[in-house]
Amino acid sequence: MTENQSMRRGRPGYDRQGILDVAVAAFNEYGYDATSMGVLAERLGLSKSAIYHHFASKDEILEQALDTALSGLEAVVADAAHPELVEGTTADRAADRLDRVLRGAVHVLVEQLPSVTLLLRVRGNTEVERRALARRRDFDKRVTALVAEAQREGSLRSDIDASVVSRLAFGMINSIVEWYRPGGRENADGLADDVIAIALDGLRMPTSNRVEELLG
Amino acid sequence: MTENQSMRRGRPGYDRQGILDVAVAAFNEYGYDATSMGVLAERLGLSKSAIYHHFASKDEILEQALDTALSGLEAVVADAAHPELVEGTTADRAADRLDRVLRGAVHVLVEQLPSVTLLLRVRGNTEVERRALARRRDFDKRVTALVAEAQREGSLRSDIDASVVSRLAFGMINSIVEWYRPGGRENADGLADDVIAIALDGLRMPTSNRVEELLG
Repeated sequence: MTENQSMRRGRPGYDRQGILDVAVAAFNEYGYDATSMGVLAERLGLSKSAIYHHFASKDEILEQALDTALSGLEAVVADAAHPELVEGTTADRAADRLDRVLRGAVHVLVEQLPSVTLLLRVRGNTEVERRALARRRDFDKRVTALVAEAQREGSLRSDIDASVVSRLAFGMINSIVEWYRPGGRENADGLADDVIAIALDGLRMPTSNRVEELLG
Repeated sequence: MTENQSMRRGRPGYDRQGILDVAVAAFNEYGYDATSMGVLAERLGLSKSAIYHHFASKDEILEQALDTALSGLEAVVADAAHPELVEGTTADRAADRLDRVLRGAVHVLVEQLPSVTLLLRVRGNTEVERRALARRRDFDKRVTALVAEAQREGSLRSDIDASVVSRLAFGMINSIVEWYRPGGRENADGLADDVIAIALDGLRMPTSNRVEELLG
């Protein structure tokens, strides 16, 4: 018997993760402030005290959900720092690490869609929200530093400010929460390929003039 | 005396546009549902009946603000359909029209920042919101059709679905409302150049291998 089954048997209906999933869906649908513990209890078919058995407060539920999204994104930046083992080469350029960060972020977004949606709507009204925003800013800074490094090594164009590049690239990635629906035509790998294709290589088909211009 | 001054003299404090500006700022700060006519009156230092002199309802204020953003975006698509008079050429490719639509949209966003911010948060809770969403969907369809035309004429890569291209490009553009502040380092022209540079030409510096690959 897995730990999960045992928890479900001991407390029928929902374990901690089950409560979290329903709560995050409600926060995204009605807004965090508009969703009271009473509304959550009704939606779960539980008493409020049954929820308090798992979470000390509504704030703790929010903190846990935001941590899921942020830990996923932070792991993407940490993992990208390790060079990939590519046969016949030991080179690992900042542009390659950025490629892995953008792809990884699309995967986190698709796999943790409800938590990331919640994270993107946080405005800093509470201490929990402000701590989440501080972690998000730290993530943004690390991505901007990677863009700047790729510009210095000559693998990315350097005529656009690194922080603008990072904001526009993540603007594109984050907008996916607005329309992505699991089980649709696009999967995470396909979406990641599309984002990389647009951000790194652009949409325009090269003309020979353009190629000569680019090669200087 | 300008018309504006005359209106201000007749009804001291705020004309219709002045009320609209303050209302849109309040809707963006507190949310539309959370902003009552009483809150607006307090913020304007007017009686509720003074507001009702200009607007029949809170819904009418919202409708007017959303119309400002939508009319701006619709004009961009309509204007882009007219070929630019470029000396020595009469050619006007779909890719050039798309370039003008993306640039124009950045300008509307920067110049109508509060109304566009409001538009992007509309979720379809009321009839006014649903009509605005229908106009937004119509705009998206026209942009997607332009992308598809540019793909058919061979000027844009055709390995990404036209509607995904349109969504990701506007995801990048719309994200500007999250961080753009008037009077900062970036102006609308500079931002439009950055968006076009990333979306159409990409961030990666071309290598000779890549150029050969692109030229087939």
